Amino acid sequence: MPASVAGPEIERLIQLLARLPGLGPRSARRAALHLIKKREPLMAPLASALQTVIETIQVCGTCGNIDSQNPCTVCIDPRRDASIIVVVADVADLWALERAHAINGRYHVLGGTLSPLEGVGPQDLTIDALVSRAHDPVVKEIILALNATVDGQTTAHYITDLLHDAAVKVTRLAHGVPVGGELDYLDDGTLAAAIKQRTPF
Amino acid sequence: MPASVAGPEIERLIQLLARLPGLGPRSARRAALHLIKKREPLMAPLASALQTVIETIQVCGTCGNIDSQNPCTVCIDPRRDASIIVVVADVADLWALERAHAINGRYHVLGGTLSPLEGVGPQDLTIDALVSRAHDPVVKEIILALNATVDGQTTAHYITDLLHDAAVKVTRLAHGVPVGGELDYLDDGTLAAAIKQRTPF
Repeated sequence: MPASVAGPEIERLIQLLARLPGLGPRSARRAALHLIKKREPLMAPLASALQTVIETIQVCGTCGNIDSQNPCTVCIDPRRDASIIVVVADVADLWALERAHAINGRYHVLGGTLSPLEGVGPQDLTIDALVSRAHDPVVKEIILALNATVDGQTTAHYITDLLHDAAVKVTRLAHGVPVGGELDYLDDGTLAAAIKQRTPF
Repeated sequence: MPASVAGPEIERLIQLLARLPGLGPRSARRAALHLIKKREPLMAPLASALQTVIETIQVCGTCGNIDSQNPCTVCIDPRRDASIIVVVADVADLWALERAHAINGRYHVLGGTLSPLEGVGPQDLTIDALVSRAHDPVVKEIILALNATVDGQTTAHYITDLLHDAAVKVTRLAHGVPVGGELDYLDDGTLAAAIKQRTPF
């Protein structure tokens, strides 16, 4: 859009919206217009919600989760099983596991996965902090909930090696057929894993 | 996401982001995380851009465009042909025509199209203002750039009737094959219109 039509203020808003994942230049324009039309019910609350998050959100010093308190809600929740630490690459993975009510333990957010190609080494992740948490006598199990990608599995192996002298059981997510998935559409590796790790019916 | 994981501030931000067109609940979560990770380079500028637009944007009293000045940049631009008024349903259509550099006239934003089913009547649109602008002796042509839908065409007919005693030529957009379009994928109505309105080669 030429800047001359709607003025630099809207142009700037569109440019920033277009940098959100899931919004391209065209949908950013639509979003900007939608916001302008809904100034009171949507735009003003969004501006204020952003400001609130900017002012309140911090990274949990224990697990790396983001929250408005530090330590985070998960780390201080007494109803959670402190003997289990679920290791995830990213806060988004933590959210996904929580949405699924998959487990009631605590978490450890690595901040990514090891990736020699992208120059991500152990010092760029919170691996040292994880190792020291794993030596807490309360902790009995470390579940590596990392992506089933090369980088994810490399990271899992690296962490497992570091934890060999800690008194914890190290486990990882099962491979297998996704719930609702059709065999015909699955890759060979998943099918082979699902057969290999078959369970009694 | 359970509110217990990330706190009410982030939950509220996600809910608001999910109300933007093009973002669903899942992509709103991704967008919120992206914003939190890019607090300085993206989140703070976005909050401030929203606030700026909230404070500066207004609707042009002449044409209905949105801008930080009233009358808007288009209406006061002396390089634009004041004899042509392009009638559009929405500001988004105005932006689209400007992006295409389709015409160098002025605009009139109706604020929608007539839609008896949705209860939109002439009094809900800026049709009266358009009629009075059309009686300005400077204006020679009214181009109806409305969607080729039933509502759009109903609105075009309604406006044309109202303008019969104004000294202006009323035109509408051509129907035909979209540039880059393949005949095989076009509907019958478009093909018939393209044949009927064929032009010398």
